[in-house]
Amino acid sequence: MNYNIAVIPGDGIGPEIVDEALKVLNKIGEIYGHEFKYTEVLAGGIAIDETGNPLPNETVDVCKKSDAVLLGAVGGPKWDTLPGHLRPEAGLLKIRKELGLFANLRPALLYKALKDASPLKPEVIGDSLDICVVRELTGGIYFGERGRSEDGQSAYDTESYSVKEIDRITRVAFEIARKRGNLVTNIDKMNVLESSRLWRETVLEVAKDYPDVTLNHLLVDNAAMQLVRDPKQFDVVVTTNMFGDILSDQASMLTGSIGMLPSASLAEGKFGLYEPSHGSAPDIAGQNKANPLATILSVAMMLRYSFDLENEAKAIETAVESVLDNGYRTGDIYSEGCKLVGCKEIGDLVVDYL
Amino acid sequence: MNYNIAVIPGDGIGPEIVDEALKVLNKIGEIYGHEFKYTEVLAGGIAIDETGNPLPNETVDVCKKSDAVLLGAVGGPKWDTLPGHLRPEAGLLKIRKELGLFANLRPALLYKALKDASPLKPEVIGDSLDICVVRELTGGIYFGERGRSEDGQSAYDTESYSVKEIDRITRVAFEIARKRGNLVTNIDKMNVLESSRLWRETVLEVAKDYPDVTLNHLLVDNAAMQLVRDPKQFDVVVTTNMFGDILSDQASMLTGSIGMLPSASLAEGKFGLYEPSHGSAPDIAGQNKANPLATILSVAMMLRYSFDLENEAKAIETAVESVLDNGYRTGDIYSEGCKLVGCKEIGDLVVDYL
Ligand SMILES: CC(C)[C@H](C(=O)O)[C@@H](O)C(=O)O
Ligand SMILES: CC(C)[C@H](C(=O)O)[C@@H](O)C(=O)O
Repeated sequence: MNYNIAVIPGDGIGPEIVDEALKVLNKIGEIYGHEFKYTEVLAGGIAIDETGNPLPNETVDVCKKSDAVLLGAVGGPKWDTLPGHLRPEAGLLKIRKELGLFANLRPALLYKALKDASPLKPEVIGDSLDICVVRELTGGIYFGERGRSEDGQSAYDTESYSVKEIDRITRVAFEIARKRGNLVTNIDKMNVLESSRLWRETVLEVAKDYPDVTLNHLLVDNAAMQLVRDPKQFDVVVTTNMFGDILSDQASMLTGSIGMLPSASLAEGKFGLYEPSHGSAPDIAGQNKANPLATILSVAMMLRYSFDLENEAKAIETAVESVLDNGYRTGDIYSEGCKLVGCKEIGDLVVDYL
Repeated sequence: MNYNIAVIPGDGIGPEIVDEALKVLNKIGEIYGHEFKYTEVLAGGIAIDETGNPLPNETVDVCKKSDAVLLGAVGGPKWDTLPGHLRPEAGLLKIRKELGLFANLRPALLYKALKDASPLKPEVIGDSLDICVVRELTGGIYFGERGRSEDGQSAYDTESYSVKEIDRITRVAFEIARKRGNLVTNIDKMNVLESSRLWRETVLEVAKDYPDVTLNHLLVDNAAMQLVRDPKQFDVVVTTNMFGDILSDQASMLTGSIGMLPSASLAEGKFGLYEPSHGSAPDIAGQNKANPLATILSVAMMLRYSFDLENEAKAIETAVESVLDNGYRTGDIYSEGCKLVGCKEIGDLVVDYL
């Protein structure tokens, strides 16, 4: 099969980690007989520098014509002082909306070999952790009406959700739960917010179509506590854009190795954008020090969710695990007794283990 | 001096923990020569049962005429199926608004004697933890306009803040920081929300009046990560009602002993409402098993913030610490080798150590 992939290397360590991910993808193509075609496009700081726009139209067009998008990382202090609509984040929000990427999947996965990296006690975290946060990504307060009063003395934002939006994100969560631990935890603030009450009602409606999946509910404040107290109680978590922003980051930090965590942002159908959960780390850019594993694992998610290539996805995940089990580490996940390697080297190792 | 205190025992373990707190307060009165006068009033589930209203007008009136309010806990499964405006939470939100309790102080304090209770590793949490979260409590999305569309297919809530609201909560945070570690961390989501951009601008304005206090800023998603990764970087945290709800609960769970954590909700001037951070624990109500220390420590906060009795506040805090150091524990904080005591007994012990 042929697959067209739009590639956005972006800023900071983006280009080097994307290089390693494509190396791995090419090897998968070789082994399993697929052809991956890449079209490189601009977004983020580099797009601001070259075109004055954090998300040029051409980038959107190329993405829309592709089967999936791979993104490295965008942003950096260089562009932090620009006005809001010209900042790399504006490009990120716009690409989500333009491509209809309503379902953000953020696994918080702790590998056995890295379990000491967790800030949680061994008796709390156990041998591993495997939570999948499903965050709504194109609605809520991120995209609601906002503004200031005429006198400039107050400002507002609107959290708004429709049944349709809640329905579709909830279904994504239930479908994923069926392929995992059959447990969905819905997180809202229904004791205060009207939008959360509609959210809760809709989740309960959708749940009727998934009688085989267990559904729990937590208020967002309690969820933030439970994630620290007993993270192993979670399998799939579904929540709003804003709560998901907070809780998915909290959950990923429980693993202690954010350099390992991929993410997928899915549209209706099979289209999706895949990127590591970490940032652009400008301080180590171009020094062959970055950890490309989150990007490599993002490619595995692409194979699974956009191309239905489960075996190929698993092969990458197993290879990454082998690299870790054999003691290879980039600087960010290094611990005594391990073998310190660079970005390129660990990419090569994943290819070798495939 | 004479002090008038409105007392709301509330539901579940509320009455028994309040009893112990008043016992301690009476002893303080004896030792230091103050007179505390109590007026008991209804709120929460018991108020619903007896008056049909989670917050009767009489309660508001009595509170307004008092110098401070002590609250045990409200709510319980018995009232969870009532319509929203009749639930105990509705009473809680109304009392905050009616009494103008705009500044919620939620210390996340880990006592040396209880440091093993933290779910975080010893090398992350250290010997103790002392964060004071200052949460805005009468504004934001909790009190903004909300509703549903006519066809019922969507619902919205409004996050709204004025310069005046932001200014006054920020000043509370800076004033507290001056009495502690001289560090304020402001938490917002200014890369997305307009209200957060006004929040950030206003915090920066206020900071000019406190050149002696260090000010940091974190985006809320990063804050949720940093609290897990390195909670010791925080001293005073200031944030919105919604973010504060989430982050103060997350921070308190880092201590692993939420039964120990007091809170204060302050109005302009000296008036305040004081309550433990934990809930009403209906499962152990009336069995002399509850931990009254959070309520006792809330009384210490009352002495400090509403009555300016710093020595008396410290005396209570020191007595509580001595009780712990001498190995006495209620069930919720019990660990092997300690002496298990009941609610009344640990209250008596605090009185003894005063
Ligand atoms: C950069 C920012 C706008 C973005 C968000 O809040 O969604 C980021 O935090 C994320 O989670 O992808
Ligand atoms: C009960 C609920 C409305 C309340 C809140 O969200 O403020 C509670 O969680 C709290 O933090 O005091």
